Amino acid sequence: MPKVLISTVPFGYKNPLPLELLKNAKIEFQINPFNKKMSEDQLSEIIGDFDAIIAGTEPITEKVLSCAKNLKLISRVGIGLDSVNLKAAKKRGIKVSYTPDAPAPAVAELTIGLMLTLLRGIHLSNSQMHKGQWHRLIGKRLEKVSVGIIGIGRIGTEVINKLNAFGTPKILINDILQKHELEKIKSLEWSTKEKIYEEADLISLHIPLTNLTKNMIRKEHLLRMKSDAFIINTSRGGIISEVDLYDVMKSGHLNGAAIDVFEKEPYQGPLKEIERCLLTAHMGSMSIDCRNRMEIESTKEVVRYFTNKNLESEVPHNEYIN
Amino acid sequence: MPKVLISTVPFGYKNPLPLELLKNAKIEFQINPFNKKMSEDQLSEIIGDFDAIIAGTEPITEKVLSCAKNLKLISRVGIGLDSVNLKAAKKRGIKVSYTPDAPAPAVAELTIGLMLTLLRGIHLSNSQMHKGQWHRLIGKRLEKVSVGIIGIGRIGTEVINKLNAFGTPKILINDILQKHELEKIKSLEWSTKEKIYEEADLISLHIPLTNLTKNMIRKEHLLRMKSDAFIINTSRGGIISEVDLYDVMKSGHLNGAAIDVFEKEPYQGPLKEIERCLLTAHMGSMSIDCRNRMEIESTKEVVRYFTNKNLESEVPHNEYIN
Repeated sequence: MPKVLISTVPFGYKNPLPLELLKNAKIEFQINPFNKKMSEDQLSEIIGDFDAIIAGTEPITEKVLSCAKNLKLISRVGIGLDSVNLKAAKKRGIKVSYTPDAPAPAVAELTIGLMLTLLRGIHLSNSQMHKGQWHRLIGKRLEKVSVGIIGIGRIGTEVINKLNAFGTPKILINDILQKHELEKIKSLEWSTKEKIYEEADLISLHIPLTNLTKNMIRKEHLLRMKSDAFIINTSRGGIISEVDLYDVMKSGHLNGAAIDVFEKEPYQGPLKEIERCLLTAHMGSMSIDCRNRMEIESTKEVVRYFTNKNLESEVPHNEYIN
Repeated sequence: MPKVLISTVPFGYKNPLPLELLKNAKIEFQINPFNKKMSEDQLSEIIGDFDAIIAGTEPITEKVLSCAKNLKLISRVGIGLDSVNLKAAKKRGIKVSYTPDAPAPAVAELTIGLMLTLLRGIHLSNSQMHKGQWHRLIGKRLEKVSVGIIGIGRIGTEVINKLNAFGTPKILINDILQKHELEKIKSLEWSTKEKIYEEADLISLHIPLTNLTKNMIRKEHLLRMKSDAFIINTSRGGIISEVDLYDVMKSGHLNGAAIDVFEKEPYQGPLKEIERCLLTAHMGSMSIDCRNRMEIESTKEVVRYFTNKNLESEVPHNEYIN
């Protein structure tokens, strides 16, 4: 009987179907006993003789894999692969699957929610009101700002389509590759990252964490932004330097930031001192429908593997470059 | 030289144009010295010999008007007329203007922002994170819920158009009059208010405060809603009974509420004890562009009046009924 470690939490919480799929396929499973994101050491200790892992974003490193004697499949619940040492997995013949389409609608909607919250100061007013303070904050509308989107993949594209529905007059976009199917949207303008930093009223990141993007946005870039601009990161922690963001915001620069992802999660760092920094707990994909889809798709890959069917969502080779 | 009292605050803060319009027309003005919404007594005391008022939502009652010996024009910055005793003004030959179109885009965007915030628990996560707590909250997407909109005027219609862009599959709508130009949106369904209370996952109000709508939503209606539903009020305080909303939410019913408007503003009441009640400080119209437009339009009416031009945005007679 194959044994699967489900390291991502919560799992099967709103919909028990993924757990039933495992039971029906006679696959034994254990859900993360720590009930929070495991460290490299915790995962190394627990991974033992599991045959597969239904993985969150905990580090699946060389060290972890060296402890995982029986591991044959890593099935990632989500799209990011920064947490997985793909080359080390490949060397050991461990297959890696993911669910690249499932999170996009939820991340895009959260991003628009964060944009509207920042632009109107909803988070600030809410915390003032709960303290008995009344300040009518004045903000901006999506129809009156220029937005910079870095990363035009599944999520960035959905964010752009929604901004278009709000009538955003100028959307500056940047990616490693230029894709042309978006160019029917008149407000789009391919731009350098430098131009985005300097001109956008609001910047949102939708890129993976790789060697190229790690610490991509540092103090020098943040300081180049307009003093009343906003920045949003719902992609991965570590793309914006957290220390630099803290320093820059502490100095009074930037009107606000919304940070959903952190270098170390659960996050306990100093950004919490900054009220105009809107913080959420890695909730981009956390809508019931997208989460269900991610859990079901990743579980089905595990079931396929152990019932000798072809995997349907293996990570493609071009992802193994970074 | 005519004298104008500007009772709404802030005013001319982001854009001094309205104040310049008054200066150029040689109209003397005084801005609300209390720097917050005036009470009936405060306004009665101060209104003295002013010839016109550029008014917020402070009560312009029989008592206030009886103290306003010289008043010839009430120019409302905004759309709601619940604060103005229209009949008492008419009796005295005082004209009333308003800016009914200007606030709609800002109120509609704030409403969508509040919807996304409630559905994903952005406000809850932000306050947890700032206290050093990490809980990945799971929520719902606009593409997966049924939304009830009560009031299909300028604002309600804009909210519906935006929901349509998010793919909301079912939008239950209710108004005193059925308007048919919306019916090309397939997800719309004219419904009784009772059906909306019972079936919608999220209800948003976009109606004026009148004798008909005062305390329209009481305990019995709130309890008819799904236990995990959300309710949003960006229209006027007093339409949802605040006492009943407090009691019902305190008892655990409803997943959340977003309240931007209150029976008495500045609000200091007990809803602030309820964390899942998202509170904002009457900020519906508070985007720079809409606020500018409201201030400029209401000021231009005053200038028109005192330069013997026709008013362009007088309150129509059908508004005098309630």
